[in-house]
Amino acid sequence: MDAHTIDTADNPPSQPGEETPWLSAREQRMWRAHLEVAKLLEYQLSRELQPHNLAINDYEILVVLSEAPDRRMRMTDLATATLQSKSRLSHQITRMENAGLVLRQECPGDRRGLYAHLTEQGWETMQRVAPDHVRSVRAHFIDRFTPEQLDAMFEALAPIAEHLRGLRGRP
Amino acid sequence: MDAHTIDTADNPPSQPGEETPWLSAREQRMWRAHLEVAKLLEYQLSRELQPHNLAINDYEILVVLSEAPDRRMRMTDLATATLQSKSRLSHQITRMENAGLVLRQECPGDRRGLYAHLTEQGWETMQRVAPDHVRSVRAHFIDRFTPEQLDAMFEALAPIAEHLRGLRGRP
Repeated sequence: MDAHTIDTADNPPSQPGEETPWLSAREQRMWRAHLEVAKLLEYQLSRELQPHNLAINDYEILVVLSEAPDRRMRMTDLATATLQSKSRLSHQITRMENAGLVLRQECPGDRRGLYAHLTEQGWETMQRVAPDHVRSVRAHFIDRFTPEQLDAMFEALAPIAEHLRGLRGRP
Repeated sequence: MDAHTIDTADNPPSQPGEETPWLSAREQRMWRAHLEVAKLLEYQLSRELQPHNLAINDYEILVVLSEAPDRRMRMTDLATATLQSKSRLSHQITRMENAGLVLRQECPGDRRGLYAHLTEQGWETMQRVAPDHVRSVRAHFIDRFTPEQLDAMFEALAPIAEHLRGLRGRP
């Protein structure tokens, strides 16, 4: 399956213009491999978090808050850090609040702002789940690269991450 | 931000066991780069499809159906091809049916089965949108690799995709 581009071989649709050629076979196979790994890996990691009653986005929130000073963050900063819309994050935090993992608190001196605060139960949950999650990340991804591949992947991906971060804030 | 793992530096939680060490700094930076690129790239590509009134999952369905024989697929096969649950796909196909992009049809000789069929309007939509989408994929991802990096990434990712595909079917 090719999720996001079209093969040139059959039924070529209108070309994107001389300056933007279709993906070559080499480009296409890499693009497909990236899409498949990104999607299937998220699926597999989510699945292995299910016995802990955590969605993968919940786990991410626990980790980000656990690394923040005083284990709390402004909701707006948390939305930025987890690349979510504020409304979607708000729904998620409500669910996690009901599960006792986080607490919403007003910012002292800033009535408009709200903090999300990791609870003791949230902290303990993360500590309990982390070993299993690291095991999953190693088994299905990290341990499948040679050290040279790890470094080469980082070199290739880091500038792309930076480029995309730069675009994100723009209208 | 580290979305899915924990740094060893501060507050080390209980270790995952001798046989599963935490990620090293080199492993961690690659893992972060992968997560960020996967997430931000999907965000950016979605954003650039918005003027066409298409979600990224809609576009994927259009492409998969356009490549299928007779431009149609059984709903169950389409769910597998797009890595979605059957219930989520069903909701999506309903939306796309309302937009005139696809049609649901019964399988001849199999009353339990349903096909999703690309309409002429769906086909034309894909042809119209594809050049812009290829331009986005190039600008934000593919054209940012050297030919050597493209091949190295494919070599590294292809066996992982295969591993994850193999896991997907299992209980």
